[in-house]
Amino acid sequence: MANEKKLVQCVPNYSEGRNLEKIDKIVAPYRGKEGVKLLDYKRDEDHNRVVVTVVGEPEAVKKAVIESMGVAIDVIDMTKHEGQHPRMGAIDVVPFIPIKNISMTEAIELSKEVAKEASEKYKLPIFLYEKSAITPQRQNLSKIRKGQFEGMAEKIKEPEWKPDFGPAEIHPTAGVTAVGARMPLVAFNVNLDTDNLDIANQIARRVRHSSGGLRFCKAIGVELKDRGIVQVSMNMTDYTKTALYRSFELIKIEARRYGVNVVGSEIIGLVPMEALIDTAVYYLGVEDFSMDQILESRLME
Amino acid sequence: MANEKKLVQCVPNYSEGRNLEKIDKIVAPYRGKEGVKLLDYKRDEDHNRVVVTVVGEPEAVKKAVIESMGVAIDVIDMTKHEGQHPRMGAIDVVPFIPIKNISMTEAIELSKEVAKEASEKYKLPIFLYEKSAITPQRQNLSKIRKGQFEGMAEKIKEPEWKPDFGPAEIHPTAGVTAVGARMPLVAFNVNLDTDNLDIANQIARRVRHSSGGLRFCKAIGVELKDRGIVQVSMNMTDYTKTALYRSFELIKIEARRYGVNVVGSEIIGLVPMEALIDTAVYYLGVEDFSMDQILESRLME
Repeated sequence: MANEKKLVQCVPNYSEGRNLEKIDKIVAPYRGKEGVKLLDYKRDEDHNRVVVTVVGEPEAVKKAVIESMGVAIDVIDMTKHEGQHPRMGAIDVVPFIPIKNISMTEAIELSKEVAKEASEKYKLPIFLYEKSAITPQRQNLSKIRKGQFEGMAEKIKEPEWKPDFGPAEIHPTAGVTAVGARMPLVAFNVNLDTDNLDIANQIARRVRHSSGGLRFCKAIGVELKDRGIVQVSMNMTDYTKTALYRSFELIKIEARRYGVNVVGSEIIGLVPMEALIDTAVYYLGVEDFSMDQILESRLME
Repeated sequence: MANEKKLVQCVPNYSEGRNLEKIDKIVAPYRGKEGVKLLDYKRDEDHNRVVVTVVGEPEAVKKAVIESMGVAIDVIDMTKHEGQHPRMGAIDVVPFIPIKNISMTEAIELSKEVAKEASEKYKLPIFLYEKSAITPQRQNLSKIRKGQFEGMAEKIKEPEWKPDFGPAEIHPTAGVTAVGARMPLVAFNVNLDTDNLDIANQIARRVRHSSGGLRFCKAIGVELKDRGIVQVSMNMTDYTKTALYRSFELIKIEARRYGVNVVGSEIIGLVPMEALIDTAVYYLGVEDFSMDQILESRLME
């Protein structure tokens, strides 16, 4: 193949969603760097959080992320932070996602390098999570983050919660950080023609992994008050193994029980092309399809 | 947007599918050129024809195509050419397809520049076809090509068939060429669980534009003898207006009349990502989806 350049995505979450000047400083290390492309950053004032999306070559992304982590530690003071989203540190979480010509193993390795360097440089305790996790307990970010910034000073003194890198005490103003590798997430919501939230919740329970459903699907019921309907709001955590169409068709099947219909869906934010190509290939029953047949795949080489 | 680079595709068809040395010479002008990427070339010995797929910046592609046309004129002698595929010239047809940041109007303009320059440089009569055609009659390549190389010497002397560029007599060894702009073609075949070719042909007639069907769909029935089934073999000539799922669902509906089922499909060769994304969005009922949400679209910028 013409171009074997490795591409990794990184979606660091920082605990600052209100002060534009500080956000600009945090994002600056991702701008104008060879091998790093800033795709997006979305701040949320209620969450008081900014989510940055960058993509690029592993070494270049690694350097930019470590630089940006330093800036975030300088400008964010977690002792004064408030926001609706659960958080435990100035740099709350740093996920690495393999995109192209890079294996999950390599993305895990990269996440460990970042965790090691950043923890030493900034005296920051760091947990490895998701695919990088050392123990099953640490795979799940919400288990690591439980207690949040305010509870973390005590929590990480427990032997069970000793950080994977850095000191066993929190950074006084930056708390702790989780770093890890994961598959791309697809935020996929399916709308129902009812205003009964209980129905959406019951369907969500049947579809999601944690209560007997699809392996790589997280789901909750959500009300869309302005439209007078409810939805099953999902995070598809590995679309290569749990396809979008599978959760969609399963929701249709479960909805029948209530005489309820699926009336549409939403995809929030970015989605890898393959997640939708795979869906089209399923519905059209295309035999022997290869992603190499996609014109744009060839152009990206 | 970050990168406004115009991208055009060109799929020239040359009347040489057997002599590898000649084919190498014809393809050489597309190699190692700044702004031109050779995606593919497929030769067919029975057809005695090679189909080249290149993509790149309009000016660079234009130069490479004109250079390659010159080579083809040097190495191909149509007076000695035989092959199953209809053909009228050494360079039989040169379609330009807008891919990115380029309008159909610009692709038409590009095709006219190539037609003008190549006709003057090589004393080659050239017809503009498809979207570049000057008259409705010349839109359809098969009408232009009727009579093939052997009949063309007489045909282009008729006032009705005076070439759009170049002399009103054929090039003695290279015949005539058609140049034009068109939308990307998607070769999409739908398989039926019957061995009755008549059923595939009847469905094809109902689905295709020429006999009352979908505007941008050409279709014929085809036997897959080794599998004991038939298929509706389609060329989708503008997937942005006649979506793949629409022809697929229509074939399912028409097949019912015969108690026949759709058992799968095939996509032959390259397909633009959007043709399949659009299909996935239809089947999942995704509301307000934008192609900007595709990660790879963002990466290509």
